[in-house]
Amino acid sequence: MKQQVFLVSDSTGITVEALGQSLLAQFPQIVFETSIHRYVNSVEKVDAICQQVADSASRSKHKPIILSTLVQGPLRAKLEQADAHVFDIMGEFLTPLEEIFHSQASPSLGQTHGQKEDAEYQQRMDAVNFALINDDGVTGKHLERADVILIGPSRSGKTPTCLYLAMQYGVYAANYPLVGEDFDLMVLPAALVKHKNRLFGLVISPARLHEIREARRAGSEYASLKQCQYEINQVNILYREHDIPTCEVTNRSVEEIATRILPHLPISS
Amino acid sequence: MKQQVFLVSDSTGITVEALGQSLLAQFPQIVFETSIHRYVNSVEKVDAICQQVADSASRSKHKPIILSTLVQGPLRAKLEQADAHVFDIMGEFLTPLEEIFHSQASPSLGQTHGQKEDAEYQQRMDAVNFALINDDGVTGKHLERADVILIGPSRSGKTPTCLYLAMQYGVYAANYPLVGEDFDLMVLPAALVKHKNRLFGLVISPARLHEIREARRAGSEYASLKQCQYEINQVNILYREHDIPTCEVTNRSVEEIATRILPHLPISS
Repeated sequence: MKQQVFLVSDSTGITVEALGQSLLAQFPQIVFETSIHRYVNSVEKVDAICQQVADSASRSKHKPIILSTLVQGPLRAKLEQADAHVFDIMGEFLTPLEEIFHSQASPSLGQTHGQKEDAEYQQRMDAVNFALINDDGVTGKHLERADVILIGPSRSGKTPTCLYLAMQYGVYAANYPLVGEDFDLMVLPAALVKHKNRLFGLVISPARLHEIREARRAGSEYASLKQCQYEINQVNILYREHDIPTCEVTNRSVEEIATRILPHLPISS
Repeated sequence: MKQQVFLVSDSTGITVEALGQSLLAQFPQIVFETSIHRYVNSVEKVDAICQQVADSASRSKHKPIILSTLVQGPLRAKLEQADAHVFDIMGEFLTPLEEIFHSQASPSLGQTHGQKEDAEYQQRMDAVNFALINDDGVTGKHLERADVILIGPSRSGKTPTCLYLAMQYGVYAANYPLVGEDFDLMVLPAALVKHKNRLFGLVISPARLHEIREARRAGSEYASLKQCQYEINQVNILYREHDIPTCEVTNRSVEEIATRILPHLPISS
């Protein structure tokens, strides 16, 4: 028996999706069937959701659950009438906040487009371009503009981490691969020496790196466990010798890696 | 006078950040000073936050606000003692959910690493690689694997939208630029004809496109308003003639664009 969950948002749904995921993950014993409903910004659209909820309720012995980040009062009131357990997230918090602030919330549909937000958005998009141009040390020309330069063996996750740092936090993140002779000579690549204080090293287990590389080039020396062990052993010495801060990435998502790097950055968030 | 807001999470903080942003945006008249505290996963770390909150409270006539997604009971109880208005988001919703489910929440720190999650994560990372390889029509070789192929004039936002679709939703998104002769001849590029049902067209205002291009190549014909008007006029005809679904991107963030494209995709979310 599946528990139906309706996630309802008047905007992108990113907030309600994140919160829903966190909450439902606390009940691993229950099987959820989740649907997300974005841009629900009119009475008609709320009515349509209520109809779907009613259909779902009639087919199941478990009342559906609605998690909603709807902001506007009339839409929230309408949704409350649905045949479901309704969790009105905005209502839950806005009312006490209004009391604390002695001031009314002004429904803005969550999307504010002030000058500050525009500048922040522009920075995020510029940072994405920067990450693309400065991926894998291709040019090495713009490194002085970087907030951080990720280093590590090939396939340790540098590129997606840079893109996430850029997209989500507007961080100018470059990355530079460590390759053959860097490991053998145990020296930092010349291009990196003057940017030493902006380096950040990714650490991954040899077994996991081996697995990732095998998926790409099965049976190659590059993918062999022996080669992975060698490279990781060498980079770890390199990190230590040059006092480079590191992040363990083996069982971590790009979100986890990025948010662990953030506190080390000048524009820390 | 600034209102201090502490966002507290035992994990990446992505959920509490999203919810905090939505809530605080409803009070544009108030100036907030927000700090985020991630990976607060021990009593010692909660104690340190409480100390910071106390310092902040003693310097301001406004009591600080804490928004928390802490999951574990003892940490939540500790945080409740802070000299602040504490919004315990998990507590607020977990208790009623436990009643509905007749079952206890099992604190998982929000990060579940089951097989399903691992597979979803792997798909997201594969999709990011796909988006990078299939950016700007560079190869045109892998288009049959794409869930969606974004088209539009140069600088209309195809690349960041593809990356976001990949990173956040695991969507295999390619993009293909429309250039000179496509506009003049008013035909779809040959590489796209057989993938017509996966095309998605970005629509942008000529004035905005002009502005974006000027920032890159000021004074060029490429950036001129006239050229932008011409290209957009032509692509709009092209979209209509080939019945290609479109998304207006002019005043929208990459999050908004991506979530408006999602419902059109086969793996719709």
